[in-house]
Amino acid sequence: MKDLLTLKDLSKEQFDALFDRALELKKRKKEGIMDRPLEGKSVGLLFNKPSTRTRISFETATIQLGGVSIFMNENDTQIGRSEPVKDTARVLARYIDCLVIRTFSQELVEEYASYSGVPVVNALTDMYHPCQILSDLMTVIEAKGSYNVKVAWVGDGNNVAHSWIWAASTLGFELAIACPEGFDPDSAIMDEALARGGKITIFRDPKEAVKEADIIYTDVWASMGQEAEQKAREASFEGYMVDEALMGLAKPDASFMHCLPAHRGEEVSEEVMEGASSIIWDQAENKLHMHKAILDMLINRKL
Amino acid sequence: MKDLLTLKDLSKEQFDALFDRALELKKRKKEGIMDRPLEGKSVGLLFNKPSTRTRISFETATIQLGGVSIFMNENDTQIGRSEPVKDTARVLARYIDCLVIRTFSQELVEEYASYSGVPVVNALTDMYHPCQILSDLMTVIEAKGSYNVKVAWVGDGNNVAHSWIWAASTLGFELAIACPEGFDPDSAIMDEALARGGKITIFRDPKEAVKEADIIYTDVWASMGQEAEQKAREASFEGYMVDEALMGLAKPDASFMHCLPAHRGEEVSEEVMEGASSIIWDQAENKLHMHKAILDMLINRKL
Amino acid sequence: MKDLLTLKDLSKEQFDALFDRALELKKRKKEGIMDRPLEGKSVGLLFNKPSTRTRISFETATIQLGGVSIFMNENDTQIGRSEPVKDTARVLARYIDCLVIRTFSQELVEEYASYSGVPVVNALTDMYHPCQILSDLMTVIEAKGSYNVKVAWVGDGNNVAHSWIWAASTLGFELAIACPEGFDPDSAIMDEALARGGKITIFRDPKEAVKEADIIYTDVWASMGQEAEQKAREASFEGYMVDEALMGLAKPDASFMHCLPAHRGEEVSEEVMEGASSIIWDQAENKLHMHKAILDMLINRKL
Repeated sequence: MKDLLTLKDLSKEQFDALFDRALELKKRKKEGIMDRPLEGKSVGLLFNKPSTRTRISFETATIQLGGVSIFMNENDTQIGRSEPVKDTARVLARYIDCLVIRTFSQELVEEYASYSGVPVVNALTDMYHPCQILSDLMTVIEAKGSYNVKVAWVGDGNNVAHSWIWAASTLGFELAIACPEGFDPDSAIMDEALARGGKITIFRDPKEAVKEADIIYTDVWASMGQEAEQKAREASFEGYMVDEALMGLAKPDASFMHCLPAHRGEEVSEEVMEGASSIIWDQAENKLHMHKAILDMLINRKL
Repeated sequence: MKDLLTLKDLSKEQFDALFDRALELKKRKKEGIMDRPLEGKSVGLLFNKPSTRTRISFETATIQLGGVSIFMNENDTQIGRSEPVKDTARVLARYIDCLVIRTFSQELVEEYASYSGVPVVNALTDMYHPCQILSDLMTVIEAKGSYNVKVAWVGDGNNVAHSWIWAASTLGFELAIACPEGFDPDSAIMDEALARGGKITIFRDPKEAVKEADIIYTDVWASMGQEAEQKAREASFEGYMVDEALMGLAKPDASFMHCLPAHRGEEVSEEVMEGASSIIWDQAENKLHMHKAILDMLINRKL
Repeated sequence: MKDLLTLKDLSKEQFDALFDRALELKKRKKEGIMDRPLEGKSVGLLFNKPSTRTRISFETATIQLGGVSIFMNENDTQIGRSEPVKDTARVLARYIDCLVIRTFSQELVEEYASYSGVPVVNALTDMYHPCQILSDLMTVIEAKGSYNVKVAWVGDGNNVAHSWIWAASTLGFELAIACPEGFDPDSAIMDEALARGGKITIFRDPKEAVKEADIIYTDVWASMGQEAEQKAREASFEGYMVDEALMGLAKPDASFMHCLPAHRGEEVSEEVMEGASSIIWDQAENKLHMHKAILDMLINRKL
């Protein structure tokens, strides 16, 4: 596999290889063992959207493996200054060892990948967020022993939800999506995932979706760029807050996850965020370990 | 000691340990000995104010010790995008090995520290500038053999002055502060420092303050964010320029220091800046060596 | 040689030493041999203009040699915040091991160099672009076996052309410059280069200039900062597009070069850009290898 652009193309074996490597790298780090498979290598981060977690976890992943990251935002580069992507992609691939892109359009990331001689990683587009779900599933494995669980997604059928759908369709775990009408995941993605045999169901009532769930997962109602819709979205998502009452309808040992940043009092209550069932800080940490696995396996052609 | 937030909390032993380590690291660097105690480690710089010296000295300190720095400004991150500090702090601490913050509010730095599992370093707030005074005192030791000298602060009783006050109160050296009425250091800080037995005196006449001084120290009259007050401040500080006449009233071998950037013709004359008594370039260099000591001792828990 | 500010001052021996070292470093990289002569060292990039190629090639050059780069733009630093260059230059030289500057004024770069204790590299000014021509000539050597060829410059007599002129005057290769009236290279530079015995001729007709040429080289008609002149310049440069017809007038095996970014349909046609005679991607890659040679030889005082 040259690039990581969407979970759609990942085989079960590739998922498992990434989980194994990430868990192994996490263990070695805790034991104080230093691996430097990226020594002398550079990872370029091309970010057209602000980011803390994704950026810093990719940068520290690179650094802990002995490499150096180069952060590029739109202002500092000539990218977008009337140069075709096919030119920028071909040139960057002569310098760096991997290109991590966070941008709006999935097509843009795919165009980069098609012209780039080095691996391209999708670190969020409007359509997908594959790396997020990989580290999330690693967290599920740690918390529940395996990913053979029931995951309840409560909220917008957005890019993060789309990547959950592909993961569920390939790995076979149960995914219950609770979202208001008008906020369904992309129907073409749903149709194809169901055709693959995915155990994925859409609910309008969060209370229905979380029944027997091992994992309750939510995300902000208005993502970056949707701030203008904030008020309207708050109305649409009424009753979708993950609070202790909703958590109480899931399995007794159900865990709460959130890809952060979180808006307390909107999609999640303070009590759930800071409560005993919340595994959000481990979830955030695992981005580091998973990104190390992704970078190592793509750059050193092990995937 | 987990964090370095203010000199107020530093014991004399901790001051001395930092001076010793910084001087040792400087010596080893000059001898061409390379130490890499930060290999594989990352230091995050979270800067809400522009900076050259503090930023680059922290970045090169990290690099010379084998680590890699990650520079974050407000625009590139989601920090400030409606996420509580307690969340950002907990997440960043899962990725980086130390967080260096330059911002406005001392409370913000302290909030970061209280939620962060990794060391937090105050690299300037409106209230304090502890790292600056640590490297300044290292320069005093080099120039005068010890910090048991008389230091004259000529100018605004600002954040840099506040850190000088805490240092003087703990280390016992004499500190004479010349400032116009209305520009006194914070009275609560002064009161507590005097209660600790600090030999600190406020003067209105710079000529009085510099008598018998070994070190004459000044800073810009209008710091970042105070540019609008520039004209009014110039009037208030009339007679406060450190020129050769004023230097002539101190000890014959007195040295001139300035934390830079300097405004020639305002707080200091060109002749003094570039004259034989000026040790400002060694002072600037020592930020590098002191920051190496700070990072090494905090990250590797030696302080 | 302490700095690399212009090709004017470079001897033939120094040119050759840089070509040899860059070609050697490229060969070693392809063989998987890792050199780390910059371990523990930092290279500061001070860029007042947006840049992709030059920035990323200098950053990856540093990283592949074991060092770490520090990217500074105007906003993130206090540079330009009323501090004299002579102060900034002296302070930065206490921290970093080399300063790479991309800015408008050649005088500014020279002022930095005169006050800096560490090497200063000109990574583009309005007057010169020396590093570009060094890697371009390395590409010529690879493509043609030596730089003893005929180079045809088709376009604006700009900063890139100026550096070609100095290179031609020292190395003795033939340089034919086709430019419309009003877009001649600086006449003082031309006069001095001719006085040195440079085989440099200015043509008004591109068809004349490219006769017997081994290399056809062009650049955008309106550089950064000249966007307002775009329309007027398009009119002035009518007939200057490098297309297959023009390439057909040069030697049969002539190669096309461009320092990028390119504007297809203006200074070059899509067919030529993507055609078999185009060596622009190798040319772009060679910036990496040449920058490694420049950094290594300046920082480790081998030039």
